[in-house]
Amino acid sequence: MPREELQNLALRRQLFYPTAEIYANAPAGFWEFGPIGVRIRNNIIAFWRKELVERERLLEIHGSVILPRAVFEASGHLKSFNDPIVQCKKCHALFRADKLIEEKTGMHVPESMSIEEIDKLIAKHNIKCPKCRGALSNVRLFNMMMRVLIGATQNQECFLRPETCQNIFLDFLRLYKASRQGLPLGIAQAGSSFRNEIAPKQTLLRERELGQMEIEIFFNPDKINDVEHFDEVADYKLMLQRLNREGIEEISCEQAVKQNIVSGKLIAYWLARLQQFYEKCGIAKQKMRFRELDAEERAFYAKETWDFEVLTDLGWIELVACNYRTDYDLKGHSLGSKKDLSVKEDNKAFIPHVFELSAGIDRTFYVVLDQAIRKEKRGKEERLYLDLPVQLAPYLVAVFPLVSKDGLPEKAHEVFTLLEDYEFFCIYDEKGSIGRRYARVDEIGVPYAITIDYDTMKDDTVTIRERNTMKQKRVAIESLPELLWKLSVGKLSFQNI
Amino acid sequence: MPREELQNLALRRQLFYPTAEIYANAPAGFWEFGPIGVRIRNNIIAFWRKELVERERLLEIHGSVILPRAVFEASGHLKSFNDPIVQCKKCHALFRADKLIEEKTGMHVPESMSIEEIDKLIAKHNIKCPKCRGALSNVRLFNMMMRVLIGATQNQECFLRPETCQNIFLDFLRLYKASRQGLPLGIAQAGSSFRNEIAPKQTLLRERELGQMEIEIFFNPDKINDVEHFDEVADYKLMLQRLNREGIEEISCEQAVKQNIVSGKLIAYWLARLQQFYEKCGIAKQKMRFRELDAEERAFYAKETWDFEVLTDLGWIELVACNYRTDYDLKGHSLGSKKDLSVKEDNKAFIPHVFELSAGIDRTFYVVLDQAIRKEKRGKEERLYLDLPVQLAPYLVAVFPLVSKDGLPEKAHEVFTLLEDYEFFCIYDEKGSIGRRYARVDEIGVPYAITIDYDTMKDDTVTIRERNTMKQKRVAIESLPELLWKLSVGKLSFQNI
Repeated sequence: MPREELQNLALRRQLFYPTAEIYANAPAGFWEFGPIGVRIRNNIIAFWRKELVERERLLEIHGSVILPRAVFEASGHLKSFNDPIVQCKKCHALFRADKLIEEKTGMHVPESMSIEEIDKLIAKHNIKCPKCRGALSNVRLFNMMMRVLIGATQNQECFLRPETCQNIFLDFLRLYKASRQGLPLGIAQAGSSFRNEIAPKQTLLRERELGQMEIEIFFNPDKINDVEHFDEVADYKLMLQRLNREGIEEISCEQAVKQNIVSGKLIAYWLARLQQFYEKCGIAKQKMRFRELDAEERAFYAKETWDFEVLTDLGWIELVACNYRTDYDLKGHSLGSKKDLSVKEDNKAFIPHVFELSAGIDRTFYVVLDQAIRKEKRGKEERLYLDLPVQLAPYLVAVFPLVSKDGLPEKAHEVFTLLEDYEFFCIYDEKGSIGRRYARVDEIGVPYAITIDYDTMKDDTVTIRERNTMKQKRVAIESLPELLWKLSVGKLSFQNI
Repeated sequence: MPREELQNLALRRQLFYPTAEIYANAPAGFWEFGPIGVRIRNNIIAFWRKELVERERLLEIHGSVILPRAVFEASGHLKSFNDPIVQCKKCHALFRADKLIEEKTGMHVPESMSIEEIDKLIAKHNIKCPKCRGALSNVRLFNMMMRVLIGATQNQECFLRPETCQNIFLDFLRLYKASRQGLPLGIAQAGSSFRNEIAPKQTLLRERELGQMEIEIFFNPDKINDVEHFDEVADYKLMLQRLNREGIEEISCEQAVKQNIVSGKLIAYWLARLQQFYEKCGIAKQKMRFRELDAEERAFYAKETWDFEVLTDLGWIELVACNYRTDYDLKGHSLGSKKDLSVKEDNKAFIPHVFELSAGIDRTFYVVLDQAIRKEKRGKEERLYLDLPVQLAPYLVAVFPLVSKDGLPEKAHEVFTLLEDYEFFCIYDEKGSIGRRYARVDEIGVPYAITIDYDTMKDDTVTIRERNTMKQKRVAIESLPELLWKLSVGKLSFQNI
């Protein structure tokens, strides 16, 4: 579905909009989520928690976004979390040098390229300021972290975390010891990260304040192939776009391990779980791929990286970076903090290795919605609905009186209160024609709508309508709580009502 | 219950612990929540959302924590969000001048006192450095906001929000127009705020990065007494500690309005809803009060303030500030942004007034847990359990095999999987004696525990045990999903099983 549909929907239903928009010069790259947007966004986090954290027995933490300088000296971010930038000598506009070269030449500028090499490319291709055609300065490195000074004399230099995983590395040893479960041990966190992007763009796709849901699996590298439930995914096919291969290959986890396409079973297992999660979010398998990154494209801490991407009208969009970070982080923090972060298992002390699934919350939000938009011709009219899975829908059910008279609204309120008392998320609406009201909840993805009509007044039955098929069934009011409960946990399908 | 019990429990079960603790000089005032802590903390937010946002038809947003300077010029925070501080001329330690005076003299130093007056008090009472007895500098004002520079030339001065409500004021007009529901309109947000406290202390009670759940009710001041559901709270008694009165009075909402104790029905209504929420969180009414603040003690934007406080072993702890902010905020942002933020109702244009309920998430977490700790003598042993309401418990149910042999663990896993498939939050444990396992889930507040024993292997029944009473009932495995569902939404009580 085209990006425009989503932008229109976002605007019409306040799904998201710029931060501090009433102020003329508010900085770009900051976004607010409106009431419907928040519900869907929270549901994405809750579904991630349910499917990946809860079911996989991971531990979740909630840590501070402000961390001391020493953390980022040890993590390498002070040295390496940079973008190469150039400034126009005439109009003083700033640009990312790598992006200018990519736009002009189509070539990819890897993270590892030195600033001298980038300077040479700019000269070679005679690249000028895209705004005024002025000459460009030499390239300099710009660190993307945001600095905050703490304390009454502001003598404690801190930074806003550029990735949520740093808390996880800092907390690892405490949680490892307390959990007594040994390795592998997975720790997860969902929260905000901060990056001073030079050119935030495409709304939620490149933000300065971004939501991340990150999972770090700590494991013994000698046991990368000891994975308890590997048999559950052995035959499941990953969508892999390997280095130096044409196209996407469907390869089972078992084969991916056997052919050494991934470093071990643990990695195949987690790629599978992640892909399954996004399938459950409603994204078609044919629009997914794990793209393998080469050494130059990988982040500075990664030995093996698979970017999970989804094909949209904007091209492939990266939702998750899957990084084999080795012992890079714990080793760094051991040195930086002078605390020994090694563990002892099987009479051997070692620093655990880490495999990471770093998902963008807002990118997931954007792409899941983009992929869920459905348009159907219905006679002369076009119908638009959001095909969200029940777990992500902003409300489980809408409650409508057919008309706003003859006691129907009062009866509808009774039904609404009944369902609310059972803790279902419900929305009530009595304004406009019933068709308009169905359309309003369809476009925000509400899976079921209950209508109170004149028959209800006689026999205490209502209609329940399914969003996608628009089919209706007649059921007793008293059966609604159990029925909705079973629909919401997937223990009943609408057609079997 | 004594604070020590909670600190011990927090330590033993990793409920919370200092951020970046492996680094020697990490700044104070930052905290991490461990796996059990996160669950309870998330449940507190979800329960607030259910009881106050959802049931009261408020709109919720999720906004950025970074906001531009102009916002805080308009909000008054750049000018007024200050603490008075003094420095020791000898050892250079910094102190809050108001706190030093309070400690030495017992007198209260109001927010409105000028620095000259504070200087005079320090001289008059001959106050010295508490660390080295050195002389103190003159008082200066210290702004508690944290500055962040945005953009590649760092030319956009921003601040981390010191209160989550600022996004709400900035977003108000857009959401007001889109909602088409008119006033009163309530908007809520839960998230992080940041205050560069000079002396963070008492763990979660004074943090530099703090969780807030804020509600702003926008209303027409001429209609402060038009409250749709006021009759539901008219007879409900507020616990009020009024200015210049001895002790706490129980006063019904109706009387509070009639006697002009509050500015109108809208305020009484929301104080009642808030007090009811904390009752549902398990805090005894006898330990609550709304303390009325006088003009000098109120925040700079407030016309009427009731601090909701709970009595603990540390004294009264403020959990929520309830501020009648008038049109202060929207007027300020209208001027600052040059956007007209007035609304037009009944042919009259006006700036809505605001009543605010600003709750601390982490303070609520701390106090709810503190108040939930129960100790019971059981023969020679002492039993400790956390009497959390089911909505706040980290898990709904624990699943235990009586012993780890004879197929009982396998059967227990079956039951666990069954319940997990119904999306209940469950915990499995087979380590140690059954008594130890009950104790472990009791102390983190899990309300129910299911045990698989030898009878289970014969007839597919299990025992279900209630945390508080330790009573057990025998039920069929197949009845568990519906039974737990009804227990979790309050439609069934344990004694009626």
